[in-house]
Amino acid sequence: MELYEYEKDGAEIYRQSFATIRAEADLTGLPADVARVAVRMIHACGQVDLVEDLAWSPAVVQRARKALDAGAPVLCDAQMVASGITRRRLPKDNDVVCTLNDPRTPALAADLGTTRTAAALELWRDRLDGAVVAIGNAPTALFHLLEMVAAGAPRPAAVLGIPVGFIGAAESKDALAASDLDFLVVRGRRGGSAMTVAAVNAIASDVE
Amino acid sequence: MELYEYEKDGAEIYRQSFATIRAEADLTGLPADVARVAVRMIHACGQVDLVEDLAWSPAVVQRARKALDAGAPVLCDAQMVASGITRRRLPKDNDVVCTLNDPRTPALAADLGTTRTAAALELWRDRLDGAVVAIGNAPTALFHLLEMVAAGAPRPAAVLGIPVGFIGAAESKDALAASDLDFLVVRGRRGGSAMTVAAVNAIASDVE
Repeated sequence: MELYEYEKDGAEIYRQSFATIRAEADLTGLPADVARVAVRMIHACGQVDLVEDLAWSPAVVQRARKALDAGAPVLCDAQMVASGITRRRLPKDNDVVCTLNDPRTPALAADLGTTRTAAALELWRDRLDGAVVAIGNAPTALFHLLEMVAAGAPRPAAVLGIPVGFIGAAESKDALAASDLDFLVVRGRRGGSAMTVAAVNAIASDVE
Repeated sequence: MELYEYEKDGAEIYRQSFATIRAEADLTGLPADVARVAVRMIHACGQVDLVEDLAWSPAVVQRARKALDAGAPVLCDAQMVASGITRRRLPKDNDVVCTLNDPRTPALAADLGTTRTAAALELWRDRLDGAVVAIGNAPTALFHLLEMVAAGAPRPAAVLGIPVGFIGAAESKDALAASDLDFLVVRGRRGGSAMTVAAVNAIASDVE
């Protein structure tokens, strides 16, 4: 039954969506590679003013892509982030890792006196060197990553630090942006798994 | 290494987050059960003005909860939605179903001339009666659901219709709100898997 008139061609929906975003969002001032990522992040949240809160280090997209092209894993703080990454866009069938539900995580959280989401990052240590980190949920995970790296843990190639929320989210992203890591953040309270997934998917492939 | 001062107690982070939301968001005008859901949805997107775009049928939360208490499945349009639902909050170990990656879906999409996400709903038919539907990604899925029900498919107990985006999202949610189904929507372009998951998780359990 055809009750409604609406676009049913997936490719055409994407095309029209991205055209609308490019017409409405102010992408001047963004490097071309960051603008491509921004378009997909805007697509994931429906808000063209997201671009006002974006901050990045100049090499972040290039470094993250190069890491993926070399087979680096994507390390995710939340199962939803891992779930959303489109596997066929990844250039090297890269591993997508989330250690939140690892059986060792609850005990680590108790030992370290922190959240499970933060403690789960301890299990990244042997994969962190040159990895792409995608944090889309927990400010405590982002803070913990910065503390690990400051204390001598291996350095990721790039950190997409896009946790969401009211307690610590803005501060954790400011801390990442003030670090010497390559980063992409959404300043303030906005963020979340959908935006973070969109950033990874945009970086992973040139296909629009 | 303690470089930053931040709250590390997960329960305390939740408590402070929800307190901030209740202090800042204008929840007057919302029934108590919808307000509880709204708080979690705001938590998932970091934006207290989300409440301005919320619309609902009066019985939606109560009907959805009753359905879950009776063991109804949660039918999701996207894998990220299914992935985010907290299984231990579900009262009856309810099935969480996403048929997008079912091997039959691509052929159905070709036959019906629609997106895979919409076509996937055809595989819900034998579970739709009294189910809780959670659409957090595709406007075409929400339109297709309304067409299926109008054409005589079994009626779900409640529809959380929260797709995101620029092409058809607002229109699909307006169409749901104009239907005779019990519904919860976010008017306009905003929406997405994180908000949709938050709504399901809020309805599923009284635990804050």
